[in-house]
Amino acid sequence: MSDKIYLTGDRPTGRLHIGHYVGSLRRRVEIQNTDDYKDFYVFIADAQALTDNMENPEKVRQNVIEVALDYLSVGLDPNKVTIFIQSQIPELTELSFYYMDLVSVSRLQRNPTVKTEISMRGFDSSIPVGFFTYPISQAADITAFKATHVPVGEDQKPMLEQATEIVRRFNHIYGDTLVEPQIILPTNAACLRLPGTDGKAKMSKSLGNCIYLSEDPKDMKKKIMSMYTDPEHLRVEDPGHIEGNTVFTYLDAFCRPEHFEEFWADYKNLDEVKEHYQRGGLGDVKVKKFLNNILQAELEPMRLRRAEFEKDIPAVYEMLRKGTEHAREAAAATLSEVKRAMKINYFDDTALIEEQVKRYAK
Amino acid sequence: MSDKIYLTGDRPTGRLHIGHYVGSLRRRVEIQNTDDYKDFYVFIADAQALTDNMENPEKVRQNVIEVALDYLSVGLDPNKVTIFIQSQIPELTELSFYYMDLVSVSRLQRNPTVKTEISMRGFDSSIPVGFFTYPISQAADITAFKATHVPVGEDQKPMLEQATEIVRRFNHIYGDTLVEPQIILPTNAACLRLPGTDGKAKMSKSLGNCIYLSEDPKDMKKKIMSMYTDPEHLRVEDPGHIEGNTVFTYLDAFCRPEHFEEFWADYKNLDEVKEHYQRGGLGDVKVKKFLNNILQAELEPMRLRRAEFEKDIPAVYEMLRKGTEHAREAAAATLSEVKRAMKINYFDDTALIEEQVKRYAK
Repeated sequence: MSDKIYLTGDRPTGRLHIGHYVGSLRRRVEIQNTDDYKDFYVFIADAQALTDNMENPEKVRQNVIEVALDYLSVGLDPNKVTIFIQSQIPELTELSFYYMDLVSVSRLQRNPTVKTEISMRGFDSSIPVGFFTYPISQAADITAFKATHVPVGEDQKPMLEQATEIVRRFNHIYGDTLVEPQIILPTNAACLRLPGTDGKAKMSKSLGNCIYLSEDPKDMKKKIMSMYTDPEHLRVEDPGHIEGNTVFTYLDAFCRPEHFEEFWADYKNLDEVKEHYQRGGLGDVKVKKFLNNILQAELEPMRLRRAEFEKDIPAVYEMLRKGTEHAREAAAATLSEVKRAMKINYFDDTALIEEQVKRYAK
Repeated sequence: MSDKIYLTGDRPTGRLHIGHYVGSLRRRVEIQNTDDYKDFYVFIADAQALTDNMENPEKVRQNVIEVALDYLSVGLDPNKVTIFIQSQIPELTELSFYYMDLVSVSRLQRNPTVKTEISMRGFDSSIPVGFFTYPISQAADITAFKATHVPVGEDQKPMLEQATEIVRRFNHIYGDTLVEPQIILPTNAACLRLPGTDGKAKMSKSLGNCIYLSEDPKDMKKKIMSMYTDPEHLRVEDPGHIEGNTVFTYLDAFCRPEHFEEFWADYKNLDEVKEHYQRGGLGDVKVKKFLNNILQAELEPMRLRRAEFEKDIPAVYEMLRKGTEHAREAAAATLSEVKRAMKINYFDDTALIEEQVKRYAK
């Protein structure tokens, strides 16, 4: 039996979109179906979302169920994967608390992901301490479950490095207890970070450039038909550019050979389409329609599954409750090992009491 | 019945000394005996001690029982006061975790106590994050028990201000939940910070300038007889200075009118002694002997009590276990209110589930 333990999660600050899907969710379902793992944890990172949404807890709260429905709709199976809510595992905060003693303030300040995120959010010196320290709480999330494999985006590399450093420092001081995680990156380059429909680097709710997994078919078609392509490709007969052309980036991420037989028999594969587009004579509308057909086909089963799960919301909560219970047992076991290694389990430490009885008997 | 809730604690990094006694412990016993309180919590801050002793957990661990014995020896009564060990209350780390979202990094950097402590420990940029953030965990300690009165030294003022800010910010966002604490300072100026026997501002184990509560009578006498006095008071007939004279600072902290009848009938009160010393003709040795008599009388009952408790160390652990259990119930009740206020108690939140059932039924 495999001894791989996978762990990954998402911040519940909005519904998940197709960027999340190709960047991570699709891979999770593939891994889930290999059965080549001992445990697979997927969590809704509400406590982390609160670090920069403390004044807007309602947003986080409402999106917990949205993310859970997204998980179920892409095909994550609670019988195979443990889905849990981060804030309901108090052991994670206790691990964070002690790991904070193993990391220096300057080490945190050097973390490139934190640097970028701070400037993205325009925090400067008003960064909430909880946000500043989130690489440490992320290390707690990973190590609590002794995760060996963490499938995340490339931007999370510094986080995994921080977690590894904490594991090494802890094990060095207190003896082998924690497990070093390894990062699992998406293999398809187009999937590393899918741009928004407007060609902007990041999909964001406020820019209205996301296609959500739960997107209505008509809305999705509208978004696809108005996607950013090649601004120099003005007439059909003009040669077009592929690079930076969002429609082709999406096709790189989603298109499979069988899609041609089904939706566009004029071509055998994506290379032929690209060649024609670059040569001139292939209009954007045709390519967009093809992409729309592919995405509708991809998302249709998710919509159907989501509709089924939406009929019984209490059952979704019950699934989350059970997953959380199971995850909590694992985290509590690790925490107990951690406290034993640190020797702060005084009341269970009979050796300590005996030793002190002797000392005072002198 | 009084609704005052007192809370205070000590870092278990060494045995407690007479500076702790006049600065805080003596006052605690007085308060304990008034019965004018609803709850009185005294805790051993081992988790806080670990923030800058992470590589030396054994020191902290061994001193937990020392501090407990010191508490019992000064007369703290576990039937009146709840004595507990900080690290055994996981609820405190969970509260800290969420409070960290309510404080900015720059606010922490401005905390004068943290600034001083950082320079005292020579940390600079290698400050452990846990140490840097300890004003937040201290706010968790205070608020977890809804403490209204916190008897501490003047140097802790910025800590109480930070706790108050967190309480106000939390209550502002989530509604009235937490209680604002007030600081209780020592009333006798000499007790604010007792200097070391060498006249240095701080008693410290490494300087060997402390008189411990559990000090051996002979060692104590030796320390007192070699105390720092007035370097200009060379001959008995010379006029002596009182200010900065450690022996007189100790007398200010410990001497009571009845001590004259018992130990030094030549004088009626401390003012007379001071006058004679300043006038000239009173030698240091006589004053030191008087101080020694007072301190021996003060510490003798503590030594006897300590010797009794040392005979049954398992009973001391049992007392700590019971105190911790009681404290944990109180902290858990507050945490549960906090999570309800933040609305992150999803699984108990039937209103949330009903609301979402309705939303998806549309």
